[in-house]
Formats: sequence, C-alpha cells, structure tokens
Amino acid sequence: MSSSRSAIAWAGKKFRTKNISQRVRNIVISPIKEMSILADQFLARNPKTRLISFGQGIPFYDTPNHIKKAIRRALSEADTAKYTLEPGITELRELVAKKYQAKSSEIMISVGCQEAMACALATVIDPGDEVLIPSPTFASHIEQILQFNGKPVFVPLIEKQGWRLSTKEFAKKITKKTRAILFSNPANPTGAVLGQQELADLVDLARRKNLILISDETYDFLTYDNLRHISLAELRHGQNDNLIVCGSFSKKYALTGYRIGYAFAIEGIIDHMLKVHDALAICAPAISQKAALAALKGPQDCVAGFIKSLSRNRDLMCYELDKMSDIFEYQKPQGAYYVLAKYKKPALNSFKLALEILQRVQVITIPGAAFGPTGEGHLRFSYAGEPNDIPEGFKRLRKFFRS
Amino acid sequence: MSSSRSAIAWAGKKFRTKNISQRVRNIVISPIKEMSILADQFLARNPKTRLISFGQGIPFYDTPNHIKKAIRRALSEADTAKYTLEPGITELRELVAKKYQAKSSEIMISVGCQEAMACALATVIDPGDEVLIPSPTFASHIEQILQFNGKPVFVPLIEKQGWRLSTKEFAKKITKKTRAILFSNPANPTGAVLGQQELADLVDLARRKNLILISDETYDFLTYDNLRHISLAELRHGQNDNLIVCGSFSKKYALTGYRIGYAFAIEGIIDHMLKVHDALAICAPAISQKAALAALKGPQDCVAGFIKSLSRNRDLMCYELDKMSDIFEYQKPQGAYYVLAKYKKPALNSFKLALEILQRVQVITIPGAAFGPTGEGHLRFSYAGEPNDIPEGFKRLRKFFRS
Repeated sequence: MSSSRSAIAWAGKKFRTKNISQRVRNIVISPIKEMSILADQFLARNPKTRLISFGQGIPFYDTPNHIKKAIRRALSEADTAKYTLEPGITELRELVAKKYQAKSSEIMISVGCQEAMACALATVIDPGDEVLIPSPTFASHIEQILQFNGKPVFVPLIEKQGWRLSTKEFAKKITKKTRAILFSNPANPTGAVLGQQELADLVDLARRKNLILISDETYDFLTYDNLRHISLAELRHGQNDNLIVCGSFSKKYALTGYRIGYAFAIEGIIDHMLKVHDALAICAPAISQKAALAALKGPQDCVAGFIKSLSRNRDLMCYELDKMSDIFEYQKPQGAYYVLAKYKKPALNSFKLALEILQRVQVITIPGAAFGPTGEGHLRFSYAGEPNDIPEGFKRLRKFFRS
Repeated sequence: MSSSRSAIAWAGKKFRTKNISQRVRNIVISPIKEMSILADQFLARNPKTRLISFGQGIPFYDTPNHIKKAIRRALSEADTAKYTLEPGITELRELVAKKYQAKSSEIMISVGCQEAMACALATVIDPGDEVLIPSPTFASHIEQILQFNGKPVFVPLIEKQGWRLSTKEFAKKITKKTRAILFSNPANPTGAVLGQQELADLVDLARRKNLILISDETYDFLTYDNLRHISLAELRHGQNDNLIVCGSFSKKYALTGYRIGYAFAIEGIIDHMLKVHDALAICAPAISQKAALAALKGPQDCVAGFIKSLSRNRDLMCYELDKMSDIFEYQKPQGAYYVLAKYKKPALNSFKLALEILQRVQVITIPGAAFGPTGEGHLRFSYAGEPNDIPEGFKRLRKFFRS
C-alpha cells in the first residue's frame, strides 16, 4: 500500500524491511516533500538546470522586516538560547488565545501546524481507530493517522461542485471505530473553503456521534474574491467542546522555515496534547516563538500585500490552465494557493506523470494520488512561487503535454 | 499508572478522559518540564519570589557570539524563511556525517535530539513491542515508547557501582516481543558513562538477539576527569547495522532553545525515520540548522570553556551534597550535568518531596520516580545553572531538610 503512495518508490527506490516496524513500512514521506528531494537529486546530477517548482507550498515572499528586526533583538536576550516553558511563551499563548476569544490554557504553541496535528491525532486515536478525512486531503494527514496506528477512512469530495464536502457522505462512513473527522479549511490541495452551513452540519454530526473535529486552518488568512473564512472555532458554543483547531504562522508571515504553529482546544484536550508535544519536541523553538510574537504584535498590512500577490498568482495560473483546456480541467480555488487540476491525457498514473514531467521539463508538480484515491488523475500545482515562474513553467508543460 | 508519574497530578490536577485516547491517558508531560510549569504557576501567584532551579537541564551560558553572528547573517538570506529539504540542509548533513565517518544519507537533521528519538522509536516498534531501558532512565524515553504503544521494560542499574549497567541483566529481560535497547550515554539522570567493554557487550547482545540499539548521546561532549566518551557509532563495523545514534547541538553550543539535533544510522533505517520526521515536523527549523552549521564550522574553544564551567559546578554541587551527608548519598557523575541523589529522610515519595521543596523553599528539583522505579527515593539535581545558585539553593535545602 505505502509504496503506491511514494514518489521515491515509483522512482525505483527499494526500502529495507529488516527491523523496521509495520507502522513505518505503511507510511511514506509525503510526496510533496519527496518531489523536492527528487528534484534536488536531479539538480545534483544536472547542476546547470533551472528547476521550476509548482510543488511544495512555499511562499516566494520573505519574512517582513519588522519580524526580522525582532529576531535580531531576540539574539541579545539570554532566554532565546534556552527552552521556553513546554506549552509555549505565556505572552504568545495569550495573544493566540485572543484571536479565538479563548483562554491561554486553551492554546499550545507547536513546531508548525504539522506537529500540532500530530499531537491532536495521538490524543484522539488508539490503534485501530478510524478517522474520516476528505479525499483528496492534505497528504501528510494520511501519514499522521497511520503513524499512530489509526485508519484513515476516505470520504470523496464532489469535484464538479468545486470539491464540495457532503456531510451526508461523512455520516455514512461512521462506524463504532470512528473517533474523529479531520479536514483542512481552506483546503489543501483543492482550494475549497467551507461555508457556515457545511461547518454547522459537521459540528452537529460530530456532537451527535461523539466525535472530535480536527480542523487544519493553516490558510485561514488566505481567501479570494472577498470570501470570508469561518474558523471552526467560531462554532464553539454551548456543548461544542469537541473541536481542535490547528493553525500556523508559516504562510501568513512568511515563516515556514521557522516551524511555528499552534493548537486551540478546550483545556481538557490541550492538557493531553501537551504530553505528546513534550515527547515529540520538548517545546517550539524560542526564536520562532519570538518571531511569532512580533508577527502578532506588529502591523498587519504585510499580510494584505501577500494576499494581493497570491491572488494575482492565482489568476495567472488559471489563465495558463485555461490556455491548456485540451489537457486540464480544474475547479477555481477559493482559498489557499493550490489548484488540483484533472488531466485528460496522457493515460498515466499521477506518480509516473509527475516523475516524467520533472525528468523531461524540470517542473515540479505533485501527483494527485498523494492526496487520496480521489486525487488520482490529477496534479497539484502550487502558485505560491515567483510570479515569473508561472508562464515559464507552463511553457514547459505545454511542450511536455503536446509532444 | 500515568498519574503516579505526573507531578502535576500529584499537585492535584484532574485530567479529562472523555474522547481521549488510552495511549495519551497513559503518558505524562515529563516531570522535568512539569516542575518548570508548576514553578511558573507558583511565581505567578508569588511574583516577588526568587526561584532556584536544579530542575530542567538548561545551561546557564549563552550561545557563542560567532553563532549569533551567523544567525544574523542568515536573516538576510532568502531561504531562511523557507522550509529546507526534509532531511535537512545538505551541507549540515555532510558535516554531521563527518563526525561519524559516515555518509550524509546516514544523517537526518531533527527538531532536537527529542524528535530524533521519537522517530527512531516509531521506526522500530509496533504496538505491544517491548523496549529495554535502564532504570533510572531519561524520563521522556518512557513516554516516547508509550506514545507509540510500545512497552518500556525497566532494567535496574547498579547504584552502588556508580549506576553501572549490567548487560546480563538486560539479557534476562529479552522476550519475543523485545525490539530494541535504548539508553543515554553519558547518562541522564545518573551521570554515568559507558565503557568500551560495556558498549561492546551491548552491541554483541543486540546483534545476537536481532535488536536495534538506540543511544541518546546528547551529552557526548561532556565528560569529566579526562574520561573519554565512546560513541556507539565507534562500534559500527562489519555487520553492526543495528545502531541508531541520536545527538544534539543543544548543550554543546548553548542552543537548547533552537531545537536542533540529528540521528545517525544506516541509510536503510534513516529512510524510514525520515517518514516519521516529515509527519511530525516537516523539517528542522532553517534558522536553527544554520546555527548548527556555524557551530560545526566555527572555533571549538567555546566548548572547552563550557566544560570547564560545568566541571566547577559539579565540584560545587558535590561539595554541598557532602555537607549534607546526613540527608544525601550520591554517585559522583562522570558526565552530563546531573546528580541523582538518594535521600535518607523524610519518608516521602519523591513527587511529594519535590513538590514540598518547591512550595516551601522555592527550589526546583526533579522527583527520582520520574526516571523509572529505581529512581524512587532520589531527587535529580541539575548543576547546569548559574554557579551562584548552587550555594543559595543548598542553603534553602538545608533549611528545608533540617526543619
């Protein structure tokens, strides 16, 4: 099963099995990162190549200067060299709590959203437990569930309706073993954004079935055409104590390299997530926590600028995809910075196709099957990179697909 | 079981059980961090108090200036804001590999040694598998095994012989379920350092029984009285492909807050550990990787200075413990910066005692039972803090124990 989800395995790598747990034999490095690793290997063999990346979602813009200034200042503070309190710097927890009108004891500062999601899953599932996830879903969510010996249960999204999520389809897949429903919103890789009613239905379903809802809101700031993102946290009232929201500073403030994010849940859940956080990482990096503090306390106009650039990038990519409508069909993204485009030809699985594209025209794309079975027959394109890379990348893709 | 290992639970905290996995109900935040959290809460209630910490092992010295300079420089490099390759920056992997006369494909850069150990365990054990660990052991190792649904099997060390590890005792505990032997060397919390013969015996036992040996070598640079530390990596020859060495930049270069470490194993094992690393953290912080790079490339005399200071701290703490020989009995540490001292009175378990000490004289110590059953009746003292804190802390301890 795992080798069919691994780009590196498709490229010919054999994995050792002696002394290796079944757990880890079953998982893969997310193909999002595998494609970067394979591209790096290609570059080592062909050092003069210019790669174009529509792969891993790394924004092209740099960390804002006022945040860098705060990092420089942090270097002269003695506590930057040292562990922070395990749950995070108190002031940072308080500021994140404010965003959700919550208490600081309801916030855990994490090593990016990724670690927050890992802590959430470890806290909610035991071996054999099931987690409902949309298909397609963010690739790493599959591995995170498997890593803690859970079972990802895929619920297909409705592509023709803009990758819409149907609560009824989720309800059908619930068994005695189901413990949680996990999704990203805005969604990676589809760019879909959940509406008020969809969220309310999910919350209602989860409460009735005694499930935990886990929402990855890494792209909460990034919606287009004046669409408002609704956090799962906004549906927290009355008895809704079954919500876990994970978030990030990575994309909003150009801090992906700093590995800094957080989780928000009721204190009774955070208490347990902190145990996992300790065993995985001890604490989030102090310097990154201070960068995040500066990000929250500083001016926010940089964020509006980022959204504007990414919105232009989206239009540019859609324009290029439209020019290739003989090959690609896609749903226009409402948020995040990805398009998951269906290809009409060639008749290759998405792993083979992405490897061929890299090999022949040096463009990094992500095989759709990495995101779950419904992703097969698609490629994910990130438009977070340099605007100029978009026309150049598509020039190459036209050459590839039309030869 | 878990609540008996939690200082916070001993202090009265009740944990939620609804919707919480059995896995996480079974684990605790390491009492090393719990004592810091409790101390911080004490401080919030009594803001004028001056706490003395013999708790979490955080060196008092600051990051060397040449490393800070490199961090400042990194801020003007565009890639610092961005994810690095998932296994780590290539040059950093190469430099760590050099330390072990290994290949860069045998190195994974991690979020501190803690994450490297978590990746190692996930790679080696399936639910129900057993891992042999010394008792006492580093507290987090217990939680890391439990977190991946493994079973920690404690093998008592021989206190009277300087907390010596007996391979024979380890051999007796091996069952069909045993997958690995895990230890720290120099050892936390005992300060013992394994000799060539002990290591060779362990390697031999592991090879015969088809087990993986996992060695936490966070304190590899820190031995006293000209004792040489022997890395498990030095015993890698011929068929010895069953070794995983995890290391850190934290203590050696005063980078604990930066969360940066690594793992070394054959490529066949690293390949799998990288999958776990991706699902937990994506990559180690870019800025911390650049700090580590500067640490390895820069002058090493700072390290000699740190060792000298810590050696003086050790002597100071032993002097103070000797003055209290009516209360404490201890084995002089050969490495790392902890003493695990047995107390002759009062007849309290170590959790209650550590909480009483914090409450009454505001000194942070770590309950010995946090380190496994053999640790009961002991307290761990870190001597990594400010030298002046040692006499002041013991003045308070004398007051406590003699009243």
